[in-house]
Amino acid sequence: MEQSAAAAARRIKGAERVLILSHHNPDGDTLGSAFGLMRALDFLGKQSAVLCSDPFPEKFSYFTEARPLDFEPDLIAAVDIADTQLFGEKLMPYAGRVDLCIDHHVSNTRYAAETCLDPAAAATAEIMLEIIREMGVPLSAAIADPLYTGIATDTGCFKFSNTTGNTHRAAAELIEAGADYNTINRLMFDTKSRARIRVEQSALSSMEFFLGGRGAMIVIPRKLVEETGADESELDGVSAIPRQIEGVQVGLTFRERDGFYKISVRTVEPVDASEICRSLGGGGHARAAGCTLKGSLDEVKKAVLEAVERQV
Amino acid sequence: MEQSAAAAARRIKGAERVLILSHHNPDGDTLGSAFGLMRALDFLGKQSAVLCSDPFPEKFSYFTEARPLDFEPDLIAAVDIADTQLFGEKLMPYAGRVDLCIDHHVSNTRYAAETCLDPAAAATAEIMLEIIREMGVPLSAAIADPLYTGIATDTGCFKFSNTTGNTHRAAAELIEAGADYNTINRLMFDTKSRARIRVEQSALSSMEFFLGGRGAMIVIPRKLVEETGADESELDGVSAIPRQIEGVQVGLTFRERDGFYKISVRTVEPVDASEICRSLGGGGHARAAGCTLKGSLDEVKKAVLEAVERQV
Repeated sequence: MEQSAAAAARRIKGAERVLILSHHNPDGDTLGSAFGLMRALDFLGKQSAVLCSDPFPEKFSYFTEARPLDFEPDLIAAVDIADTQLFGEKLMPYAGRVDLCIDHHVSNTRYAAETCLDPAAAATAEIMLEIIREMGVPLSAAIADPLYTGIATDTGCFKFSNTTGNTHRAAAELIEAGADYNTINRLMFDTKSRARIRVEQSALSSMEFFLGGRGAMIVIPRKLVEETGADESELDGVSAIPRQIEGVQVGLTFRERDGFYKISVRTVEPVDASEICRSLGGGGHARAAGCTLKGSLDEVKKAVLEAVERQV
Repeated sequence: MEQSAAAAARRIKGAERVLILSHHNPDGDTLGSAFGLMRALDFLGKQSAVLCSDPFPEKFSYFTEARPLDFEPDLIAAVDIADTQLFGEKLMPYAGRVDLCIDHHVSNTRYAAETCLDPAAAATAEIMLEIIREMGVPLSAAIADPLYTGIATDTGCFKFSNTTGNTHRAAAELIEAGADYNTINRLMFDTKSRARIRVEQSALSSMEFFLGGRGAMIVIPRKLVEETGADESELDGVSAIPRQIEGVQVGLTFRERDGFYKISVRTVEPVDASEICRSLGGGGHARAAGCTLKGSLDEVKKAVLEAVERQV
């Protein structure tokens, strides 16, 4: 059964003990939406807790709170979880028992008894704001901080093409309710780990241009990743660099793995990254795609450059 | 005389030939506001042109348009120009002849016959949107693109503390009018020149930590700036890097000049950058300040680190 925000709000208000679930490998939206709801339930004097298969990342510690599940829930709500495969090991026992799923992914598999879905929302937090409004809970900074985080992180701070007028109006409301957006954005977007800085330095030193400056490529050696302990999201940020260079239409990152290379291809319109990668046995989206190739760095570079030249 | 947006709109609608002035060393807000107004005047069938002492930077070419001043203006409007010192050489003859100044700088010197000023606006483009609305001109993508650019650039894409609920509501309106925000934000925030990349690479290689990781510093050699031709805004972007590192409260950039060093100090609350710089003969804001010191790099570093230690 598909639900409106108003119906979801009524369902939540009818409960007294709410278990809120976030997806594994949690991001700002799944946690922001979950904790926004938890604070709203606090205001109403209801019991609640947020559970996740993975620990809450340190970077979200300004709004996360570990509460034990010391109650028997009368409502289990999943937020920003499109598919039960995203529950992770620890939460898997709840996969068949979700009463209400609140989500914005068009790919949502309708695994819950009731689903409140809005694929036009840039973030689940945008839907959660509407639900909290419908619940009649006044917005406070404690509610606004996590919801703002969800919206900002899922839109790359209002840059991505999923951002709508409604997204900005939600941000306006959250800022006016006291969301500390300046600090939040500094933590989310302008903070780099030392590991990231070291990988970035090495990547910039390896930078080579091709196609007369319309292409740029970097290499990330396996040893460097091991030494620095840089995580996937950090490496992903570094992979974005080549395409960011003025005049570059094709940005390539060659990441050395155990006996093969993972190649990330980022492009600017009209170059199709997925076409380039498909011809090398990979795939992805029009502006960002990937493939995996065996061989020496020189061999792999040669193969990829030939594929790029066929496309450009 | 101070004017409301409605009064400014009436004044503009009463004119037939409008000369619009932008400040020298033009940024996204002065040009975005000027071209937003020019497109609105186009809609009304009035003559207009935008003048600036410096050429329109290439990065704004998606909305700028060089039009000759082949008419005798009956209204001279200055946008986003707080002081006649910002007119630059070419526009200086107009400094005493401005009929209407539209601005958001609290420091505005009221040099114009009439001033429409809103210091609460994050960008002059935010005020211009209101004026264009009051002029009864429907928003089009041609008007929305420059205005969105002004707002996005003056707020660091909604990150800076000048961003308000009103700023986001303005962005909502501009996006719904067709502003190509995805492309604009890529050009404004995710595009780096090759010069910037080279300076960044060198700066990252020079990175040193101090105060047990609570401080980080980089050096930008004079020769590198000359070789790459990196401009001030590019160097400013690089100076932001040290403070962006996790755990860093004080970020220092030592920029070598002709026989002296320019030091940029960026801090995170509660460290006061202006206090650090004042003790070295400089000044600035609480989170970003600067000073100039003579001596060898080692001597200058030592003096600055001592000043930092006194503050932290």
